[in-house]
Amino acid sequence: MVKGYSVPLSPLGQANLASAPPWHYSSDVLAAEFWVDGDAARSLLPPNVTIDGTGAARAVIMYLDWQFTGSNDEMLDPARYQYRETFVLLDARWRDMAIAYCPYIFVDNDAAIMRGFTQGFPKKLGSVFQTRSFAAPSPAAAPVAAGSRFGASLSAHGERLADLRVTLREKVPDPTTVFNRPTVMRRYFPRLDGKAYDKPAVNQLTLSLTDNLHIVDLWAGEADVRLSEVRGEELHALAPVRVGRGFRFGMSYTVTDLRILEDYAA
Amino acid sequence: MVKGYSVPLSPLGQANLASAPPWHYSSDVLAAEFWVDGDAARSLLPPNVTIDGTGAARAVIMYLDWQFTGSNDEMLDPARYQYRETFVLLDARWRDMAIAYCPYIFVDNDAAIMRGFTQGFPKKLGSVFQTRSFAAPSPAAAPVAAGSRFGASLSAHGERLADLRVTLREKVPDPTTVFNRPTVMRRYFPRLDGKAYDKPAVNQLTLSLTDNLHIVDLWAGEADVRLSEVRGEELHALAPVRVGRGFRFGMSYTVTDLRILEDYAA
Amino acid sequence: MVKGYSVPLSPLGQANLASAPPWHYSSDVLAAEFWVDGDAARSLLPPNVTIDGTGAARAVIMYLDWQFTGSNDEMLDPARYQYRETFVLLDARWRDMAIAYCPYIFVDNDAAIMRGFTQGFPKKLGSVFQTRSFAAPSPAAAPVAAGSRFGASLSAHGERLADLRVTLREKVPDPTTVFNRPTVMRRYFPRLDGKAYDKPAVNQLTLSLTDNLHIVDLWAGEADVRLSEVRGEELHALAPVRVGRGFRFGMSYTVTDLRILEDYAA
Amino acid sequence: MVKGYSVPLSPLGQANLASAPPWHYSSDVLAAEFWVDGDAARSLLPPNVTIDGTGAARAVIMYLDWQFTGSNDEMLDPARYQYRETFVLLDARWRDMAIAYCPYIFVDNDAAIMRGFTQGFPKKLGSVFQTRSFAAPSPAAAPVAAGSRFGASLSAHGERLADLRVTLREKVPDPTTVFNRPTVMRRYFPRLDGKAYDKPAVNQLTLSLTDNLHIVDLWAGEADVRLSEVRGEELHALAPVRVGRGFRFGMSYTVTDLRILEDYAA
Repeated sequence: MVKGYSVPLSPLGQANLASAPPWHYSSDVLAAEFWVDGDAARSLLPPNVTIDGTGAARAVIMYLDWQFTGSNDEMLDPARYQYRETFVLLDARWRDMAIAYCPYIFVDNDAAIMRGFTQGFPKKLGSVFQTRSFAAPSPAAAPVAAGSRFGASLSAHGERLADLRVTLREKVPDPTTVFNRPTVMRRYFPRLDGKAYDKPAVNQLTLSLTDNLHIVDLWAGEADVRLSEVRGEELHALAPVRVGRGFRFGMSYTVTDLRILEDYAA
Repeated sequence: MVKGYSVPLSPLGQANLASAPPWHYSSDVLAAEFWVDGDAARSLLPPNVTIDGTGAARAVIMYLDWQFTGSNDEMLDPARYQYRETFVLLDARWRDMAIAYCPYIFVDNDAAIMRGFTQGFPKKLGSVFQTRSFAAPSPAAAPVAAGSRFGASLSAHGERLADLRVTLREKVPDPTTVFNRPTVMRRYFPRLDGKAYDKPAVNQLTLSLTDNLHIVDLWAGEADVRLSEVRGEELHALAPVRVGRGFRFGMSYTVTDLRILEDYAA
Repeated sequence: MVKGYSVPLSPLGQANLASAPPWHYSSDVLAAEFWVDGDAARSLLPPNVTIDGTGAARAVIMYLDWQFTGSNDEMLDPARYQYRETFVLLDARWRDMAIAYCPYIFVDNDAAIMRGFTQGFPKKLGSVFQTRSFAAPSPAAAPVAAGSRFGASLSAHGERLADLRVTLREKVPDPTTVFNRPTVMRRYFPRLDGKAYDKPAVNQLTLSLTDNLHIVDLWAGEADVRLSEVRGEELHALAPVRVGRGFRFGMSYTVTDLRILEDYAA
Repeated sequence: MVKGYSVPLSPLGQANLASAPPWHYSSDVLAAEFWVDGDAARSLLPPNVTIDGTGAARAVIMYLDWQFTGSNDEMLDPARYQYRETFVLLDARWRDMAIAYCPYIFVDNDAAIMRGFTQGFPKKLGSVFQTRSFAAPSPAAAPVAAGSRFGASLSAHGERLADLRVTLREKVPDPTTVFNRPTVMRRYFPRLDGKAYDKPAVNQLTLSLTDNLHIVDLWAGEADVRLSEVRGEELHALAPVRVGRGFRFGMSYTVTDLRILEDYAA
């Protein structure tokens, strides 16, 4: 008898890429808001998800240095469970609900891919870096303070997809004024049997449930966002028509559940 | 409207990790057969799959340097589409059919992970190397010839999981005398919604369909197989009780379909 | 005319692996002290460097998450200039001077290799991870506090060389009670011309000069150190006979100079 | 007493990045010739090395999949000793000698960096891929034959530096009609002591000595070469003004010695 939450199932249930929840996360985040061509945003949305109005659509790009732990001290094995991620969110609407829809996400860890697929995050492998803030004073320390500058980059297969620069200006007392939309994804697993390439086994609109969400030490300032054209990617279609504020903060939450908003296959 | 065979779906359908079949593959393979504890093999099998008899079970480990192409000249973009893989197969039986069941597989590429998940291969990320054979004569060339030695290694997250050494002795005229069982996998996607951790969305026994299969230049010889214990893995439970022949060959095939042998969820 | 501090020299002097100092560094460090067989320590030392006494020798292993900047905002390009490092130091003596001699060091970045070689650090490529401490509260956050646990690992070419676990117990008010010896290395570049393999072009005993050294937030506690035997490495000869305290702290300094203690080639 | 050819020196002499010669190499090579702005080429040359004439200068870019062995069966440990490399050569002249000068070279392995530095190759870390040719027939096989297409890419730190495409047309019977110039490098190790940043410890013009050189299965055809501008690199200053033939071949040789053409420091 095999055990485990995900493949590979195994006799002891220790080999699975993702073990059963709870999944606990804590991170440092470098982010920016920007506006993209409304049609470019709309063309990425699943059925019954819309963008308000006819003008540019608001997007957010986030770079995250993550630490994960489950129930087995995973954070003491950082070679397996520490990882880095970049994703884009589009301000959108499902029925009456204001949401942040995630069309693209890149990560450098296979356990994170599996936990992501399970929720509906369309993860690909990427190489992600962000300037860190260190306690020991130095021109290299990048303290979280007014005037400090941070950079971040996303590459895939040796090609640069996205660069971010942020200069901190001031602390934001209430993070919920900035980040207040739940994240929505499309959980989609294709079929191969019978060559049913366009009849997916799973095709759902899902909503991320984040218990014990904390956003701490949120700073805002100026930002620069660059999305580069790369063969095999379409991220650059979201190149900014305008860039808003940049952000740096800490974020943590726990995942144990998922809400299915719609089942497109039904 | 988004397009594509797999996530991420996108306006042009070019961002998907796996595009729709046909999927064409060609490889160099270093492999060995070995025997493992029968209970260890049995404990890895899904329902209705069995091992013959009560003694040791025959297993095969393969290291593959793969080149992939779909319909868009992917082989000209080797940074994205060339990859390396290691897997283990267990000689088993589903009903009356002699099969090779795949409990573990590691690969160094995300497109390969997605195509693998779609078929039921339980892929994790690994770092895979095998001695190659080069045409220019040198003590470093490792020609495919009697007496030539080859090594291969599999690591994950900086830990060595499996080492293989093969010394070639003679060419095998008919490859079908060695490799003649179809590969069977368990296609399994878990659920998170409603905390239904043990009620997978997809839970099927699948059979790999390989069109235009070619096995060429098959050589056999002696082998040494070492499987190491690593926290978070269970591969070492298949440590050899006896090692048989080692092999080196070329293999190619095309994938366009999949057969569902059983639907465990039904 | 080409410019630059190191190779590759280039017309604008921007392609060099290491640009001219100042080199500014800030880091988070996980470390432990341990004692090793005295003969094993002695057998690693260069001429005129000794270990006190006849018993076990004290060693320190450090894992460092580094951020580097030179004079060109390198810290805003973390894909190139953020890196991770593990090294071992042996308490030793050169003439009357108490020193910490560095026999082995691993790093994941090529600019760091070049700056290291220039000083005499015998750097090899490694894959280095340490548990990080995040501000957002979570079971995954690993705060710097009594009872918090941290792990760290070093691998090279897919093989695990060294594991460290530390449990924090108390803050150390004065870091100089723990870290107070200057680091000494052997700067050694071999020759190939005339097959003079044993007549190095450079063969010096060097002393690292660290301006503006800061050690902050030093905590101490228990530690576990494991050094594994790997073909092509000799680190495991320093396997602990006894493990002392573990440490976690921040460290920063600037490098602009180097002291040559002895020129063995002269 | 420590032993070894290069750092790190160690009691058994097994930890050194590069062991003493002989160094045996065999490879598959994808290459192209192209012409670059004459001033751009001249600005990369060391003292007493010149480009003929006033027009464009001929350059060659090579991508190499290498297998290395020394005297200890290194080729059986491909995770450590198999590597990939890209370099550029400029047709030049030292005194009366026609040479190929190497201004830039990238490699994905630390032992290769050390052996390279010892000879004078200015190696940086890069991620290198080339389309391979496999024996098993498939649209993915890329046979060495008229009409076959090959791609290659070089990236560093997640940014694409150079792309090559080659279409094979015909076999070249005599490789010496194409590759017939010895490779010349600048062996240069900077100093840090006394802040003598511009007084290198080693500053020599060196000539690579390749014993038992074999170039086999040389095919020629059309080529496309793209060099991209990347911050921190100057390779793109050699962007082609014209591209000539592309090549695919096997190459092997052994290194045991080096010739010093000039000692600039003397």
